Amino acid sequence: VGMSDDSEGEFPPLSDLERSVADRLPPRIWSYIAGGAGEERTVEANRSAFRRWALKPRVWANVTTVDLGTRLLGAPVEAPFFIAPTAYHGEIHPDAEPGVARAAAAAGVVAAFSTLSSASLETIAAASGGGVRWFQLYLQPRFSVTRSLVERAEHAGYAAIVITADVPVLAVRDRQARGGFAIDGSVPVGNGADVMPPPRASEREGSRYRLRAPAETDWDILDRLSGVTRLPFVVKGVLSAEDERLAVEHAAAGVIVSNHGGRQLDGARASLDALPEVVAAVGERAEVYLDGGVRRGIDVLISLALGARAVGLGRPVLWALAHGGAPSVARYLAALGAELASAMELAGRRSIAEIDRALVVPVPDQGPASP
Amino acid sequence: VGMSDDSEGEFPPLSDLERSVADRLPPRIWSYIAGGAGEERTVEANRSAFRRWALKPRVWANVTTVDLGTRLLGAPVEAPFFIAPTAYHGEIHPDAEPGVARAAAAAGVVAAFSTLSSASLETIAAASGGGVRWFQLYLQPRFSVTRSLVERAEHAGYAAIVITADVPVLAVRDRQARGGFAIDGSVPVGNGADVMPPPRASEREGSRYRLRAPAETDWDILDRLSGVTRLPFVVKGVLSAEDERLAVEHAAAGVIVSNHGGRQLDGARASLDALPEVVAAVGERAEVYLDGGVRRGIDVLISLALGARAVGLGRPVLWALAHGGAPSVARYLAALGAELASAMELAGRRSIAEIDRALVVPVPDQGPASP
Amino acid sequence: VGMSDDSEGEFPPLSDLERSVADRLPPRIWSYIAGGAGEERTVEANRSAFRRWALKPRVWANVTTVDLGTRLLGAPVEAPFFIAPTAYHGEIHPDAEPGVARAAAAAGVVAAFSTLSSASLETIAAASGGGVRWFQLYLQPRFSVTRSLVERAEHAGYAAIVITADVPVLAVRDRQARGGFAIDGSVPVGNGADVMPPPRASEREGSRYRLRAPAETDWDILDRLSGVTRLPFVVKGVLSAEDERLAVEHAAAGVIVSNHGGRQLDGARASLDALPEVVAAVGERAEVYLDGGVRRGIDVLISLALGARAVGLGRPVLWALAHGGAPSVARYLAALGAELASAMELAGRRSIAEIDRALVVPVPDQGPASP
Amino acid sequence: VGMSDDSEGEFPPLSDLERSVADRLPPRIWSYIAGGAGEERTVEANRSAFRRWALKPRVWANVTTVDLGTRLLGAPVEAPFFIAPTAYHGEIHPDAEPGVARAAAAAGVVAAFSTLSSASLETIAAASGGGVRWFQLYLQPRFSVTRSLVERAEHAGYAAIVITADVPVLAVRDRQARGGFAIDGSVPVGNGADVMPPPRASEREGSRYRLRAPAETDWDILDRLSGVTRLPFVVKGVLSAEDERLAVEHAAAGVIVSNHGGRQLDGARASLDALPEVVAAVGERAEVYLDGGVRRGIDVLISLALGARAVGLGRPVLWALAHGGAPSVARYLAALGAELASAMELAGRRSIAEIDRALVVPVPDQGPASP
Repeated sequence: VGMSDDSEGEFPPLSDLERSVADRLPPRIWSYIAGGAGEERTVEANRSAFRRWALKPRVWANVTTVDLGTRLLGAPVEAPFFIAPTAYHGEIHPDAEPGVARAAAAAGVVAAFSTLSSASLETIAAASGGGVRWFQLYLQPRFSVTRSLVERAEHAGYAAIVITADVPVLAVRDRQARGGFAIDGSVPVGNGADVMPPPRASEREGSRYRLRAPAETDWDILDRLSGVTRLPFVVKGVLSAEDERLAVEHAAAGVIVSNHGGRQLDGARASLDALPEVVAAVGERAEVYLDGGVRRGIDVLISLALGARAVGLGRPVLWALAHGGAPSVARYLAALGAELASAMELAGRRSIAEIDRALVVPVPDQGPASP
Repeated sequence: VGMSDDSEGEFPPLSDLERSVADRLPPRIWSYIAGGAGEERTVEANRSAFRRWALKPRVWANVTTVDLGTRLLGAPVEAPFFIAPTAYHGEIHPDAEPGVARAAAAAGVVAAFSTLSSASLETIAAASGGGVRWFQLYLQPRFSVTRSLVERAEHAGYAAIVITADVPVLAVRDRQARGGFAIDGSVPVGNGADVMPPPRASEREGSRYRLRAPAETDWDILDRLSGVTRLPFVVKGVLSAEDERLAVEHAAAGVIVSNHGGRQLDGARASLDALPEVVAAVGERAEVYLDGGVRRGIDVLISLALGARAVGLGRPVLWALAHGGAPSVARYLAALGAELASAMELAGRRSIAEIDRALVVPVPDQGPASP
Repeated sequence: VGMSDDSEGEFPPLSDLERSVADRLPPRIWSYIAGGAGEERTVEANRSAFRRWALKPRVWANVTTVDLGTRLLGAPVEAPFFIAPTAYHGEIHPDAEPGVARAAAAAGVVAAFSTLSSASLETIAAASGGGVRWFQLYLQPRFSVTRSLVERAEHAGYAAIVITADVPVLAVRDRQARGGFAIDGSVPVGNGADVMPPPRASEREGSRYRLRAPAETDWDILDRLSGVTRLPFVVKGVLSAEDERLAVEHAAAGVIVSNHGGRQLDGARASLDALPEVVAAVGERAEVYLDGGVRRGIDVLISLALGARAVGLGRPVLWALAHGGAPSVARYLAALGAELASAMELAGRRSIAEIDRALVVPVPDQGPASP
Repeated sequence: VGMSDDSEGEFPPLSDLERSVADRLPPRIWSYIAGGAGEERTVEANRSAFRRWALKPRVWANVTTVDLGTRLLGAPVEAPFFIAPTAYHGEIHPDAEPGVARAAAAAGVVAAFSTLSSASLETIAAASGGGVRWFQLYLQPRFSVTRSLVERAEHAGYAAIVITADVPVLAVRDRQARGGFAIDGSVPVGNGADVMPPPRASEREGSRYRLRAPAETDWDILDRLSGVTRLPFVVKGVLSAEDERLAVEHAAAGVIVSNHGGRQLDGARASLDALPEVVAAVGERAEVYLDGGVRRGIDVLISLALGARAVGLGRPVLWALAHGGAPSVARYLAALGAELASAMELAGRRSIAEIDRALVVPVPDQGPASP
């Protein structure tokens, strides 16, 4: 894999990627990609949290080569970032998940694919070649369907099961409502007709709201699933040390500190704000990842300095997919890797292991806003 | 009462409700609804205070049903929010207070109605059916008028008297002045010709400003009124622990931490900022409510996590009333309940009692503002 | 003097006063009124400092009459605010300083007039009638001129000499430069041909910059002037406890915490931020006033709660003068007094003496900026 | 050298200088001048850091003359600011570096010139006359080229070697990419065909990124170069006390606290935020300078109050050069000196030695943003 060179093609500077697709996509699709829950307080919080940390680089630290390689759940990967699972790639570009899988495999990074992928998990696996894939699981109302998905994923060579914990019900997403995008049976998915999106709402009876068609809702699901598969589990959607500890007790191999990209509980704390507490709670007993607001190489660097082992990429991958299909996803991954490598060179860190807490300092409290 | 479904009608996403009516209403009426005192520092402060708290949810907490039910002054209600008293509904929509009363009763929530209601309190009571109603009292220059209002409210089945403490005189409201809306005898009210709005200004004599036609101005009014009615009293407009203690000493059953939606003392602290101090002062001796800036389900959640027993809804109810009369008020209440239920599901809280202080964390101080 | 009623005339809500004149005035004159030094960091700081304090009102505090009366340097006045000295009123409106003097006298407040007034100090005195006037002194290159001004002021019945300490040289004011307004001999003044504005710049010689035509530059000037007049001195332009102590040692009767409205040292701290430190330093040994950023009644309230005895009004008086001459100045003063009275009624303070530190609380640190 | 007078010519107020050239220059050139790395977080941080400090002036401090003179590396200079090294002046204006050198020499300030100057260092030296010049060194892939540059600089009378430590590789600069400006061999430089800009990117091989044509990358380079020249060394690009200590151990005479004007590691802390820590670490063992965000006289004052001995001027010099060549650079330097002199007069500091830590106070934490 050669390094992407910004001068070679049409791929925009990363600052411009979102804008480059926002106006070009049908509003319905854009509302799906961009939309967060409610007023999007958490969408914004995820981004502004990164602005509260500044980098304190070291110079002349004997950096001639930097190595982005690390291991995720034991598998060697070429960068400490991965494709976070997002649904419905086929709505965005015909390359869909197979294209994303090819780009990720070529880049040597982990890709996680959603229960609600447009292509089937087997098709994705075939496209992925030797790439490391994780399967994101939405627990299903019927355990038999859940079990089948897990078994298929194991059979198709996925390396881990990422169980989403923060969607017992879909949140109200104002922007999607405005844009006319509904996550329901009307959007085709590739994993079979019996696979359901999470419930959209609850049934009200007086003061009580009952989940329609709920799936399992407590931590025992991890124990139950450990009887189904030998794959390791990663719990996605944890924002507290308390839940982190429960994940470890239930034998999770990893957790993703995440608020679902601000698409679920609006007002939830920023992922980055929760990270130090979760890292401190888990110690070395599980791997801690983060998603939410990661856009640039320096976001990766900040996250790792605060204790994440790797970070997930959500919206930017969808922007790139919308921009130009699999080749643009490859360009994005290459640009991000190059940015991270550059940032490490400039910060005086030669390897992932050298990215330590001393690299970041809090930005002092703000004076009056600039005019 | 069935649950509102966003896809069923014309009701906008809650983020869009205000905008949907702002441009459509006559400027004079909009200035009444939107206008705060002075420069509207407190209007803004009420909103920004909610942005200083983030939610720290728990996952897989065994939530399949959430119950929004609670008791306000002993009465069971279906949600921990209520219609805050606001004046002149008839200026906004012909459904006026009777329509609001019907919507609230159908939703199972308390509605408080203003001394300055467009309909008479008896008409409202008749429309309300079995709904729990509170009567908001502006103390009148003549005690006989005050007494008559209280007696009528008790006779008409109101469950409590909400005495407004923060309007000894109406504040200067720049936006209303600009829009040409004056709170004076020119706006018709339903409770009788002898019912007066609070005085608009004071009479100046050199350095002294004397209230014109003042009502009672000290805490003894509570003792005096307790001889008139057996109804419990709720004091509205308290922003300090000191006044909270006085309320309890004078046998108030509850207080509403409020700055009159930013319409009275501009520059007054945000209601939410005052809440923890008031809650700490009162303990279990009275019920503490809050109004000011509550718009979304998560605002309710934050308020309850910080100790409020319930929250009042002011402007959003007027927006809904302006949007489409009583049906839109019903839609707003349903949407708010659904949002709160959803937020509880996502936060891992099954009941109002489970909403505890651990649910919220302060947002870290801000780095540089986003561009 | 009757109370101004907003409904009686054309005077705009106070929020709109600045805008109402900004577009109507010749750009050169507007640049004079609005312009601060450099990038106007301090102009903005003066305003934003007030936003860091919120009011914590008390209710039912037995307020039926509020009294704004206080004493400044022993003289009874009808409000704890005064007209701060500003130059060149005649450039703004033909009513000029005599009109301002009439309005202030009618309002019962102190008015301070500038060495650089368009009218002579004697003409102003004649217009003022029984109003309390202070004379603002720019120290002159020749002491004989300084002495003459002081003697004339005493003879004309001015009650105090306000000596400006923060203009050894005029600062660069970018907005005035842009607008073409220069403070130099080209603008006519009323106090005589030998009266000089402060020097505009220094003379450079290599690394040294020498003041052209400097006046006295140390605290001994107070001792020297005390031999010229029996009038009390107020030192204007102090932003530190250290200088406050020097003022007291040199027998000043008062100080004005001020940064010249942001027109001199750009980047200087906000007047309000300096106030508590200065008040703590001086105790009861001198009267402490503040100017800079005061616009509304609640700004007066906040300043007094933090220890100021009275506040000076700069730009708003010029806005009002530009709006409609002396009658508009009268309207502004009446509106401000009414706002302050209203704020005291709403805050539960019956007199200036009851405005205490407990009335204000710091606004909690900001969460993410509102969108 | 006479003092520049704003009324004499076309030179704009300093607030307007950037704007005055931004729209007039070809977008490619503007992208070079303005562009920072990545999203320009650090560009903005450099500026907003100054807003967190306010000045606390003293009055009547017996200031009739202020002296801006100081010594940098032993050489007397007329002001505590210098021209920071920037590349490619010839792309901006035909006066290029020789014009800048003339202006600096006339102003009596140090000018540092880049390895990547459009004119040769000898040509610049000839234009400079008796002005104090520093030579900025980009370490070259071949040590023989590095040595030759240093020897030429010493021979041409440069007074110090400023070694840039923060560009082992050029960062991705989104704005320059957008504008079509590439720092590579295509831009002509004056110091010879064998002089190379820093490498643009690394070569990727799997997870490893290897610098193409790297120069020396550790602190031993200082020791090696001390065998080549007797000139003192200044290390540019330090943001930590740790690196400052290493600089002193390797016999550097000075350091420039700098993040390359936000052009290298995006997200790096503001220079001003790093300054106090660096100053505390180095004590009197080396001179500490700062660049990044300095625009106005008060920025110089704040930097010196926080411990800098002098500050470097980057973009403003390029703006001035673009505005009108050498004469505009002279005007800018004169205006900046006059502003600093004025600020010292107003702050009560007669000499550089009197600019102490007591002159600055932190701006209190921000309340709600102004509307």
